[in-house]
Formats: sequence, structure tokens, C-alpha cells
Amino acid sequence: VLDGVLLALKAYSQITEIVVVGDEGEIRRALSASGAREARLRIVHASEVFTMEDKPLVAVRRKKDSSLIRAIELVKEGKAEAVISTGNTGGLVAAATLKLRRLEGVDRPAIATFVPSLKGQFILLDAGANPECKPLHLVQFAVMGHVYAREILGQKRPRIGVLCNGTESHKGNDLTRDTARLCQEVDFNFLGYVEGNDMFAGNVDVVVTDGFVGNIVLKTIEGLGKCIVRTLKSELTANPIRQIGAAVASGALRGIKRRMDPDAYGGAPLVGLNGTVIKAHGSARETAIKNAIRVATETIQHRTNEHICREIAAAHHKLAARAAVDAGAPEFPVHKKNEDLAAKL
Amino acid sequence: VLDGVLLALKAYSQITEIVVVGDEGEIRRALSASGAREARLRIVHASEVFTMEDKPLVAVRRKKDSSLIRAIELVKEGKAEAVISTGNTGGLVAAATLKLRRLEGVDRPAIATFVPSLKGQFILLDAGANPECKPLHLVQFAVMGHVYAREILGQKRPRIGVLCNGTESHKGNDLTRDTARLCQEVDFNFLGYVEGNDMFAGNVDVVVTDGFVGNIVLKTIEGLGKCIVRTLKSELTANPIRQIGAAVASGALRGIKRRMDPDAYGGAPLVGLNGTVIKAHGSARETAIKNAIRVATETIQHRTNEHICREIAAAHHKLAARAAVDAGAPEFPVHKKNEDLAAKL
Repeated sequence: VLDGVLLALKAYSQITEIVVVGDEGEIRRALSASGAREARLRIVHASEVFTMEDKPLVAVRRKKDSSLIRAIELVKEGKAEAVISTGNTGGLVAAATLKLRRLEGVDRPAIATFVPSLKGQFILLDAGANPECKPLHLVQFAVMGHVYAREILGQKRPRIGVLCNGTESHKGNDLTRDTARLCQEVDFNFLGYVEGNDMFAGNVDVVVTDGFVGNIVLKTIEGLGKCIVRTLKSELTANPIRQIGAAVASGALRGIKRRMDPDAYGGAPLVGLNGTVIKAHGSARETAIKNAIRVATETIQHRTNEHICREIAAAHHKLAARAAVDAGAPEFPVHKKNEDLAAKL
Repeated sequence: VLDGVLLALKAYSQITEIVVVGDEGEIRRALSASGAREARLRIVHASEVFTMEDKPLVAVRRKKDSSLIRAIELVKEGKAEAVISTGNTGGLVAAATLKLRRLEGVDRPAIATFVPSLKGQFILLDAGANPECKPLHLVQFAVMGHVYAREILGQKRPRIGVLCNGTESHKGNDLTRDTARLCQEVDFNFLGYVEGNDMFAGNVDVVVTDGFVGNIVLKTIEGLGKCIVRTLKSELTANPIRQIGAAVASGALRGIKRRMDPDAYGGAPLVGLNGTVIKAHGSARETAIKNAIRVATETIQHRTNEHICREIAAAHHKLAARAAVDAGAPEFPVHKKNEDLAAKL
């Protein structure tokens, strides 16, 4: 983690300070071992650790001096703009949601993951924060993913799709059908249903699904990716001739690694909260940490949360207007509160 | 398809006859063009085609002379033991279910797909026949997958897992939790929840999920697989040096193809029906067709459906006994009908 922090401070001069939260003695020892001197690195001591085994809601209450809670509190108190954690995902989601609160109009924060495709990356969300969702939650995920695809991936007109078991409109379940129906009302480039092939062929920029399916899909991608890399390695080292071939073609192998590298984004934003929250992979190495810090920096610089608030409000307005039309009421003026709409949908 | 049929007839002497159903003139022309003579190949004419665009339930009623319906009827009438189709999946599921009927004790037929892993293959089911399932359906899928893993993959004690967004027991949703609770009562090697990494590391033989998630996962695997193969090809042919390296290491590339080849099984059984039904991929080539025929042959020779009936009945008996214990009734004798149990669970 420290190596990644030092890489990021060197690469991004716009960062004024990175606060490393944890056991101060341990951090100081690691820093002096690395011999690094960096004026923009500050240490905040925390005596506890929020472990992978901790039950999120229990530990949020009990481990008040854990590095996770302390780091989130820095954001809450305005002493930091973003928090990055490689730790317990459920703990990060629970603690960040409780302490930072949701952005206005957002019912559920979601984990937005960047996944490599043949033509760049796509955003998959929710990758695991909400195992059970309602259609309006998925519409909000679509809006937040849209903002991230535009601001962070640089897509001018991001293409939004709902992940489904087929592209025909009669496919799916109640959740996907209602989500697709609502997304058609929102002012973005909505493709309808998408499938695995669409994701990896680069035909979609934002793939919307609930956190149960999204997490399963993400772990399937990680599991298959590892399996193919291990198969490739074992086949290429099986005998000396193959090893020579692999050495000659080593540029290609590096190219594949670069293009399919999950570390290229290094962190998945937990979108929809007051503050920037990035979940880095538990096995993240320095490049992944550096890139997670880059994503946090870009998220702040692009004022992503302001865009989200504005576009969520606009989407709700559109949906409320449509609901009013469907109910036979005059289309304008519409002043429904978001909560009423959420309850209705 | 014809090339695959000819390959299979050559490879498997135990096959007494393969009936090719479709436009007789077209099949005869293709056969004479190939110059093949094969006494065990018979043609049955069908004047219609069940297309990919056809709505399953509509086409099942209207296209009575389609090759799909005619082929299934051969099985229904006892003139064939298995039907293999590369066509419309929904059409195959609908037509086969309506015409062949479910095996006793099976509430829903499921598509069982063989997927390559680091240590062989695993079976993923349901891969798309039932977008919405109840816990007892998933338990039945587990039992049917167990029989296939034992009889077709040759696993002595197949390991069964429920696909979930985490391996801890508090993860999942009502469907996965109730399924896991019921699976614990069944007399097989039940692991609990599994994730993407478990599948591809070869830690599980039968992965159980509903047809919505299963189909999304299968298409994610196919989409990512294609993406990686295309990336590998474009990187390895990007310049002459890499092309030389790839040529030298070509054994490795063939090895990967062999180990990760989706054509190795070529067909996904639709399990739970009176008769053997195999869905081959729409883009199946001759090897895939040959292997789909092999899977059909093995399914018949191993009397897979008899095993399924016996083991489904035993599982229901166990679950009914457990339900009776939970209700405070004496454990034996239990003579609940399966339908009552299905309604209850």
C-alpha cells in the first residue's frame, strides 16, 4: 500500500496530501525501510483492524478505533476528500453509508467496477453492495454509472444496458423488465438488455444489475481470467521449445497483460455517498493502489458527486412526470418527493 | 452437422442409427457432395424450420412439420432415444417439455452445461431453461447435476455447490439460503455456497443456480473467453517477431485450445425429461456435433434418467422426513407425494 501511495504522490502533483491511517509504529518502520521522504504523506494512528472475518454492522459499532472507521471519519469531518480501502467490502459499504450518508436522491450506494473489454473498459454496477434491489435502485445505478463513464472513462455518450439472460424484451424477470421500462424514460443512451458478449465486445459502457448477480459475474470474470492465465503459463513453460517461443513473443504476453490488467483501474468506486469512497482489491499491489488513488483524484476533480445529484434529480423528475401522465394527471407541474417515487416504484 | 454425424458414426460403433431430420433434398445433396456412404444414417423429411426468431410456445403449436418437432416426436414414439438440436433453445425446451413430459419427481427440466476448469470440467445448471425458480427446483437441479457429474464426468463423489455472492452462510438471498438448507439434507457431497474462483480452480463439480443467473454467467464466460482469444491472436500477430515466437510455442497454444475448448462437450443436456435431449451450440462445428452425440450416447448407456428418478425420489423422501421432524410429527413412515412437498417448499 505504501509503495502505491508513494508512486501516486510522485505521479499526481495535484494531490496535496495523502493520509495513511493505521498502526503508526508499523507504518513508520515500513516508511524508513523504504527510505522514502515525502512531505505530502501524513500518518493518522488507529489501534484496531477491521478484519475480513468481522461482521460489518457489529464491527462498525465496536471497532471505533479501526483504520477503516478512522479513515472514513476524516472524510466525514472534511479533513479528506476521498477514502480508499483494500479491506472488508461489507465493512466499507456499511461504515461509509452510515457515516457519510447517501447523496440526495440516491436510495442505495453501489459498487462500480471497471472491467476491461476488447475496446477499452466498461463499468459494471452494482458489483456487490446490494444483493436485493428494486427497479428504481437499478435506474439510479444506471444514472451514476452514466456519470462515471462520461467523467472517468471519457465516453461522450455512454451506452447503458441492463444485464439479462437474452436481449429480447420478453426475456428477464420483473426486476429487469421494470428497470428497462423506467430507463427508457431517462435522458441517456439506453440500449435495453445486454449479455456477456456485448460487455466484452465493447458494445456497452455501463452494465446495470443487482449486487447479487453483479458480484457473481465479477467473480466469474476474475476466476476465469486467473484460470486462463494459469493455463497459458503452464502450457508455455511445459518444455524448453515453448519457453523459447514465449520469450520471443514476450511482447505479446506483456501486451495481453496490459490490455486485460484488472490493476489498470485498481479500485472500484462506491458511488452515491457524500464523499469519494474507493474499494481497492484485497490483493492490490502498488500499481493497483496508485491507480485507485488516480480514480479518487479524477472523481473529485470532475465533481462527480455534483453531476450525480443533478442527474439523479433530473431522472426522478422525468419518471415522476411519466408516472403522472400514466395516472392521467396533467403532466406539469410535478413536485413529487423522491421518497414518494421510490415507495411507488 | 452432417460432418459431425459422420464423425460420430465412425467413432462410436455402439450407435445403431442416427436419424437426420430436415429438408430431405438439401440433406441428400449435402451427403452426395461429401461422398460419404453410411448405412446407419437415415433421413426423415421435415418441411418447416423452427427459426431463432420464432416465439417458442407459438411455434410449437404452429410448426408441426418443423425438424425440431419431428425429431422430438421420434423420441416420444420410441423411434429414437435421444434428440440433439443446434436450434432455438427456448423452442427446444418448450417442445421437449410439452412432448416428452418431465421425469417423475422433476418439477422443471434444466439445461446442464459442461464448463472447462483448471482441473477438468464442472457442470453449471440451470443455464437458461427457468429464469425464475423455487428452492426445491434448485435442489432437483443439484440431484440431476450430481447424477451427470458421476455418470458422464466420472466423478466418484461429485462436489455440489450453490452459486452465490460470497461463501459465508449469511450471504445470498432467500432462494440461495433455502436451497442450501435443503441441500444439506440430501445425501450428497454438498459444499454450500461457491463463487467464480471455486468454479475455475476446479473445487466444485456441480454448480447450481437459477436459469437467469446461470444464463448470464454462461454468456459472461463465453464473452470473456472470446475476448481473451481475440486479444491473444491480435497480440501474437502484431509483428513478425511475435509471429515467430507464436509459431515456436504453437504446441502451447494448441494445448490451451484443447484444455479450454467449449467444443469438447459440444452439447448441453436438457435434464429431467423422458428421453435424452441435447442442446448443441448454434455455432457448433463438426467436433462439437460429434461430442454432443457422444454425450447423448453416454447418457443413454449409463441409464442416467433411471438414476435421476431414483435419486430425486430419495431426496424428496429425505426432505419430507425432515419436514415431518420439523413439524413435530413422527419421522416414519412418510408417504408424502412430491407435489405436496413442492407446494410446501
